[in-house]
Amino acid sequence: MPMPQKTVWGQGRLLIGADFNFRVEGYTDARLRAAVGRLRGRIALQTGLPLLADATGPLQLVVSCRGAGPKNPTLGEDESYALDVSTSGARLSAPTVTGALRGMATFAQLVSADGKSYSAPAVHIEDRPRFPWRGLMLDCGRHWMPVDVVERNLEAMAAVKLNVFHWHLTEDQGFRVESKRFPRLQEKGSDGQYYTQDDIRRVVAFARDRGIRVVPEFDMPGHATSWFAGYPELASAPGPYGVERSFGIFPPAMDPSSERVYSFLDKFFGEMAGLFPDRYVHIGGDEVLETQWKANPKIQAFSAAHGIKDSRGLQAYFNKRVQELLARRGKKVMGWAEIQDPGLPRDTVLQSWRGQDSLADSVKKGFLGVLSFDYYLNYGKPASFHYRNDPLSGAAAELDAGEKARVIGGEACMWTEFVSAQTVDSRIWPRAAAIAERLWSPAGVTDEDSMYARLDAVSRGLDWTGVRHRSYERPALDRLARAPAREALQVLADALEVDRIDLLRAQHFTTRSPRNRLLDAIPPESPALRRLEASVRALSSARPSPEDAAGVRRTLVAWRDNDARLAPALRDNFLLAEDAPLSANLSKAGALGLEALDFIEEGQAPPAGWRDRSGAELAELDKPYAEMTLGAARVARLLVERAARP
Amino acid sequence: MPMPQKTVWGQGRLLIGADFNFRVEGYTDARLRAAVGRLRGRIALQTGLPLLADATGPLQLVVSCRGAGPKNPTLGEDESYALDVSTSGARLSAPTVTGALRGMATFAQLVSADGKSYSAPAVHIEDRPRFPWRGLMLDCGRHWMPVDVVERNLEAMAAVKLNVFHWHLTEDQGFRVESKRFPRLQEKGSDGQYYTQDDIRRVVAFARDRGIRVVPEFDMPGHATSWFAGYPELASAPGPYGVERSFGIFPPAMDPSSERVYSFLDKFFGEMAGLFPDRYVHIGGDEVLETQWKANPKIQAFSAAHGIKDSRGLQAYFNKRVQELLARRGKKVMGWAEIQDPGLPRDTVLQSWRGQDSLADSVKKGFLGVLSFDYYLNYGKPASFHYRNDPLSGAAAELDAGEKARVIGGEACMWTEFVSAQTVDSRIWPRAAAIAERLWSPAGVTDEDSMYARLDAVSRGLDWTGVRHRSYERPALDRLARAPAREALQVLADALEVDRIDLLRAQHFTTRSPRNRLLDAIPPESPALRRLEASVRALSSARPSPEDAAGVRRTLVAWRDNDARLAPALRDNFLLAEDAPLSANLSKAGALGLEALDFIEEGQAPPAGWRDRSGAELAELDKPYAEMTLGAARVARLLVERAARP
Repeated sequence: MPMPQKTVWGQGRLLIGADFNFRVEGYTDARLRAAVGRLRGRIALQTGLPLLADATGPLQLVVSCRGAGPKNPTLGEDESYALDVSTSGARLSAPTVTGALRGMATFAQLVSADGKSYSAPAVHIEDRPRFPWRGLMLDCGRHWMPVDVVERNLEAMAAVKLNVFHWHLTEDQGFRVESKRFPRLQEKGSDGQYYTQDDIRRVVAFARDRGIRVVPEFDMPGHATSWFAGYPELASAPGPYGVERSFGIFPPAMDPSSERVYSFLDKFFGEMAGLFPDRYVHIGGDEVLETQWKANPKIQAFSAAHGIKDSRGLQAYFNKRVQELLARRGKKVMGWAEIQDPGLPRDTVLQSWRGQDSLADSVKKGFLGVLSFDYYLNYGKPASFHYRNDPLSGAAAELDAGEKARVIGGEACMWTEFVSAQTVDSRIWPRAAAIAERLWSPAGVTDEDSMYARLDAVSRGLDWTGVRHRSYERPALDRLARAPAREALQVLADALEVDRIDLLRAQHFTTRSPRNRLLDAIPPESPALRRLEASVRALSSARPSPEDAAGVRRTLVAWRDNDARLAPALRDNFLLAEDAPLSANLSKAGALGLEALDFIEEGQAPPAGWRDRSGAELAELDKPYAEMTLGAARVARLLVERAARP
Repeated sequence: MPMPQKTVWGQGRLLIGADFNFRVEGYTDARLRAAVGRLRGRIALQTGLPLLADATGPLQLVVSCRGAGPKNPTLGEDESYALDVSTSGARLSAPTVTGALRGMATFAQLVSADGKSYSAPAVHIEDRPRFPWRGLMLDCGRHWMPVDVVERNLEAMAAVKLNVFHWHLTEDQGFRVESKRFPRLQEKGSDGQYYTQDDIRRVVAFARDRGIRVVPEFDMPGHATSWFAGYPELASAPGPYGVERSFGIFPPAMDPSSERVYSFLDKFFGEMAGLFPDRYVHIGGDEVLETQWKANPKIQAFSAAHGIKDSRGLQAYFNKRVQELLARRGKKVMGWAEIQDPGLPRDTVLQSWRGQDSLADSVKKGFLGVLSFDYYLNYGKPASFHYRNDPLSGAAAELDAGEKARVIGGEACMWTEFVSAQTVDSRIWPRAAAIAERLWSPAGVTDEDSMYARLDAVSRGLDWTGVRHRSYERPALDRLARAPAREALQVLADALEVDRIDLLRAQHFTTRSPRNRLLDAIPPESPALRRLEASVRALSSARPSPEDAAGVRRTLVAWRDNDARLAPALRDNFLLAEDAPLSANLSKAGALGLEALDFIEEGQAPPAGWRDRSGAELAELDKPYAEMTLGAARVARLLVERAARP
């Protein structure tokens, strides 16, 4: 995962034993050698085999590159590779080091235990990405993400061939980059939580090693309160300003009529251009309120003098000025779709968060488009939801070939209002891997069962990259309950799913709210529930297996009996008290599911009205509490439907 | 844990909320400030509270030191502290920074959820260690342990107040330190796996920050094959030599008759003295074979010329020479008990791995003694076994006060024949915490139930220090089986215990053997079994709880039914096939346990002969397979005994 463009399975398997080794042939450089070393380490972790650097067994993977490719990862660079695995060895060929990196990620996924040993299946793969821009946006403004968190997520990105790290570095809630030129930016704007310039260089090098571009975002003219904490003169209304602690859309905005602002930004971008080698700089541009602009007579006079009709025009003027500053530094502009304006050059990348309509509109106007609509990981949607969302669907499906070519990809977005450095991995992974497949693999790869089966494997594999999306659950649940309630809490946790946290309903949360609720411990989507659902569906198949029925019954009994074990522990626990209705509802769902299973197994038709009554009751149980929903109710409903079927 | 010397509980609790803060009063330095920052971070992780550095709430912990104490952690330095917690705040007072570090470790453990909020109980604690030498020896020679593994274990050591990191750096299987003077040591002796001098400095500084001494061990004259790979002239027989891959005791030994050896060691120690600030250097001295010495006429002639009677005398001569070299560098000697000899100075520390007899003998002769006998973590013994082992028990209990004072502590030993960097955390923790308590707390603290209850909490808490003793289990089991067998594998894993891997029976293992068996995934001691045992014992209490009985039945049923689910997956899996007998036996133990539980619950006496028959069968089920034993059989036996009781 992502599924390659072309896969031809061969006969037999290549043994991966303790003396399997890795060899570079032809072009080589430090980046390639380091990558081969990481591949060796990664497979050693996956398998438990030692795989020492000096192994000399007859079986090996030969990595053969034609050249380095661009010095830094670059939009549109050649990422193709070919991989041949046979029983006598494996060979990876790529025109560039980046292509070799992609092929190595594929090879790591091919290695598995085949019953007798570790091995990789014989196969011929030819592969290249469908879209050249496959990103992950991480909001480090609202919640601080230390360098090690960033790095382990870059490692995981590389494992699924994502190639753009969109680093959201400034927000109302925090300014996260050290500026030596304007030190009050981080001094007053970050609560001490910012990346030093050494950190930035380290992250950029780390990403480069993995074939990942780093596109920094400096959000302006709105979402910029943290800039004003140290430099209130940049704002459109007098200060003082302080870092924002709550969430939402706030009035402070840069003053588009002030030459001091442009002079400041010019120097600032000069400094940043030296840190970020990528050609693109993201200037944000989203959700600008006109409050300050309307209230400022100087800005209104400026508009009148320049024939600017409205705030939209003011922002267009601002964007154009900023774009010109960046162009002088050799940089192109990316921004949220709102910045679209005829005045901007056509190589501007517009990031659509409002849907394929706005994406289609952008590329029709000649801009480059990247889709983020419905790739928001913070909405708690299942992987299948994101997977179904093709950049070239909807209005974009109607584009002509030239326009479609300007849809250059997509970006998963991780906004962090309700996510801390501790919980962020589990919000990103494994779902971002499904988006990675959507953006890399052919459009026709859409089988969701296959996707989920492979996603499970990828999710386990990502454990070895260092992301804690799975390992965090255990200590986070341990924090909430001790044995014996801990076991019952696990049963409940496995039956829950994260509901979208609505910004409006969640106004009581701030940047300083603890992220230690049950909600924060569970994965957005429960793998246990998904497996159960598959077993329930299998009951309806031509030959239902007794093992499926037994497994389903075991789970339903556990649900039914769980509240009796868990409820007392919930009552005495300030962190879990809010979850009591979910626990009670789980037991009800278990009881209803058991009724249904009895009817199914006895081949008996339920009495009249039973189906509607049970269905209604289960719909009621599905109501969200504490920002979670009871996925178990959905599965019980499946059983009720199955029992009621004639 | 470790239990303080004096604890007086007060009334009420100190609230720990998001605005709780930490303040240093009086003496301060970088080490103390860093430690306070780590404490804040640690409690933030434990609780999920943000606990920002600039919090200004009214409730705080004030840390008050009288002075820095010695520049580097030093044997016998003052580690005492006093900690007062009341509803209005907490105050930690210590004469030294090291004392403050110990007190902060205590404070972190006091914080827990009390039903309404996070808080710490009101308490007055006065504390100091019983023994000044509380160590962990880590063998980085047989298996390489990267710097991050070492560092996270140092972090965990600090959490339980261990204060000596005994770094076993050289072995037949690897020479792990960079020498700039003699670079062939690491070039030929390490397979590229060694600590650079920068690494060493970093680890030493990391340890110092946590109040931990670093005592390096350079094992000689035996266990030194890896030295000879690059410098065969140091050996007592001509080479060539290569790094050893298998395990055992090997003939190569340094030539005690060669002045070149002493001149080499003199320069080598000169270099090492600059890296390791501690006053003590460990020179090993264990398990020296006389094979090479006997076969070398030059060495025999040397012995005759110097009136040396035997190989023991030769080693004494060697040790004395080495000790003199070290003394010139300002270093004192530590060694395994074999090096004991009247020629050595009385501040030599002898590490007893053969029992309290040899420990008593060493201190009677005037040396300093450290106990490691029965603190070998690689033996797979339960925490209670180590906990019962007091340095001043057995022969050492008979010592007079002056002799007892020369028993300065103990060291947990982690030998790594069968342990890799991936699995080592789970072999060390949490059991080393029980040893830490034995060495810190008053001798009278011996309640094992209390120890285990606290050990469970400490084990969970150690998750937040970064050691992976618990988080490793999940990916390691994932590697072995997929759903649905994965669930059944967990049931089996929870019912198993690690048997001691006997070096003689395990001659087929080498440094390159994969550590990816079920054995490597499970903890040495199963917390699930321990909880079950407690429930079984509760059945015999005056008022057995229905919840205990229900929990026991649930587990026994799961055992009984488990093999049917698991056996097919074991057959098709080269990594698990060896575990098939254990799985079959678990189901038998479950069935026998259920029989017993039925008798107990029905208040019915079992038929004649049942008890003996069942007991014999369970004893048979307890046999080790694949280096594991079925702890479940022990618990089932408890039930049989209970059922048979009139």
